[in-house]
Amino acid sequence: MRIAVDAMGGDFGPKATVPGALRAAGDFGVDIILVGIESVIRREVERSGFPKARHTIIDAPEAIGMGESLLAFRKKKASSIRVGAQLVKDGRAEAFVSMGNTGAVVYLCRDVLGSIKGVDRPALALLVPGVEKQTLLLDVGANANCQPHNLVQFAIMGKIFMEAVGGVPDPRIGLMSIGEEKGKGNDLVREAFDRLQASPLRFIGNVEGKDLFSGAADVIVSDGFTGNVALKVTEGVVESVLSMARHEVTKNIFAKLGYLLLKRHLKKIYKKVDYAEYGGAQLLGLDGVCIIGHGRSNPAAVRNAIARAREFVANRVQERILMEIPRYEHALKGVTA
Amino acid sequence: MRIAVDAMGGDFGPKATVPGALRAAGDFGVDIILVGIESVIRREVERSGFPKARHTIIDAPEAIGMGESLLAFRKKKASSIRVGAQLVKDGRAEAFVSMGNTGAVVYLCRDVLGSIKGVDRPALALLVPGVEKQTLLLDVGANANCQPHNLVQFAIMGKIFMEAVGGVPDPRIGLMSIGEEKGKGNDLVREAFDRLQASPLRFIGNVEGKDLFSGAADVIVSDGFTGNVALKVTEGVVESVLSMARHEVTKNIFAKLGYLLLKRHLKKIYKKVDYAEYGGAQLLGLDGVCIIGHGRSNPAAVRNAIARAREFVANRVQERILMEIPRYEHALKGVTA
Repeated sequence: MRIAVDAMGGDFGPKATVPGALRAAGDFGVDIILVGIESVIRREVERSGFPKARHTIIDAPEAIGMGESLLAFRKKKASSIRVGAQLVKDGRAEAFVSMGNTGAVVYLCRDVLGSIKGVDRPALALLVPGVEKQTLLLDVGANANCQPHNLVQFAIMGKIFMEAVGGVPDPRIGLMSIGEEKGKGNDLVREAFDRLQASPLRFIGNVEGKDLFSGAADVIVSDGFTGNVALKVTEGVVESVLSMARHEVTKNIFAKLGYLLLKRHLKKIYKKVDYAEYGGAQLLGLDGVCIIGHGRSNPAAVRNAIARAREFVANRVQERILMEIPRYEHALKGVTA
Repeated sequence: MRIAVDAMGGDFGPKATVPGALRAAGDFGVDIILVGIESVIRREVERSGFPKARHTIIDAPEAIGMGESLLAFRKKKASSIRVGAQLVKDGRAEAFVSMGNTGAVVYLCRDVLGSIKGVDRPALALLVPGVEKQTLLLDVGANANCQPHNLVQFAIMGKIFMEAVGGVPDPRIGLMSIGEEKGKGNDLVREAFDRLQASPLRFIGNVEGKDLFSGAADVIVSDGFTGNVALKVTEGVVESVLSMARHEVTKNIFAKLGYLLLKRHLKKIYKKVDYAEYGGAQLLGLDGVCIIGHGRSNPAAVRNAIARAREFVANRVQERILMEIPRYEHALKGVTA
């Protein structure tokens, strides 16, 4: 299996992507294609400690900044993101992995690869680790504005992903809302509720923000605006609780001792809830496999993202979405149509 | 000052509301009007330990369940919520405080009291405690569907509240979105951005979910759907982190000791981020003062909610909103109008 990796993406760039990718090559027996500025990549390969790992380099001399705007990046024909997506399009790689600017990766992958037949809008899906089991949340930011049928498509794709990759039989689908009863929510959610209820999916109704971690649903669907806000709130809460904890313990010697004893365990929890760690989000419904890692990814997280890409390809998620989408034609057209 | 309290509301009903309210009567020198089933209230007054605290009882024999639907509760003419709101309408109380079903309190207060002139939709506003300073988030659930001018009204009301009650001069207004740059967000946010930028408010642009706790803005405006999801995600994260911590520490004797030493401090942090503790949300823009406490409120939280009501009235927030709204006529009509 050949996996293209955007060597230039992420807050740490090639210093994290190159050693992470080469490590993955050895660990998973995949061929890595490093895409980016060749001279920079070569240097990092030498430094990585795995210079012999199976890899090739494809030169892509234009960089896209983490905060760069659509107007700027879409003109760059030789950016590592565009070149990486093109490798998948041309059948020269089975998947593309990037830790780069999420907006740019979503836009360029959509532009280069397009959607699977039957899917209007690919969605960015993230596995959120709960206390007991993980939940797939989608969309987490690819589509700020959604229509009811988009949410139904997200639900179908989420179901297939959780069956194929998560090993969950007949996943429970929840709809992100602000109250569990039918009728709660905004217009989008109320209409999507009816369509999901009329579908053959195992729809369990509305869920709330707190259910992101409760394990109440295996898949939670949401428009990309709400999903992204929810995700970033998570990040903020965890950071502020930890910051308060650090501040709190300086006040008292016993608390300080307690913190030291507990520190290793608190870090473990932080890793569990920190989505930078767990290998990135998948663009479901794209005609080609693309995994987007967190900008903050270290080499271990880059390796995890490549593991996700490999799982995704090995479990034939794309083919299954393509095959199953037509079964839901009724729900996609809407109950009133 | 006379404050009407919904004695029947909340998960613990009169067992929490009555002692909490009577305690507030003594502590803050306010007259408490307990609204609900008279016989039940009388019994709790005797049990409360403060039977002599300044209070009167108004009988309201119909109860509204915490999960009851609009269809059911709006027919009840003698519910404690409707009767309580009516006391404010009739000038017999300066404020109404309820821990009841949020949807019912919002609906009935709007129905009985209406909005301040110039405000189309009252918003539910919550002070979120950050690491360093608090942020007012609104709307957190009164309006699932919003128009751009609603968000501008929320911003104005939030500004006035933070000046009057929070003591923040010229509060920084942030718009909840999914990226800081102008142009990021859904259609609603993109249009509201332009209007806020054209207004005389101190608009700092888009903020993200993580900024709920970062102190980056003094006021964050959002539609009620997104705001409510954000709030409930917070609740879920805190609960799941604590649950993971409890699970983690059972594995190791040193960790257990560490946890015991840190427990008191962790509880303090939990109290800080647990919005059940800090006294409830205010309905801004309603023609009358109404504070909605969390359903899980214990007597101390009920007392805190009454403290908020008193502050609200004492700082003449209503009058200030009424006076200031006309200054923003241009932004409310929209930049394109």
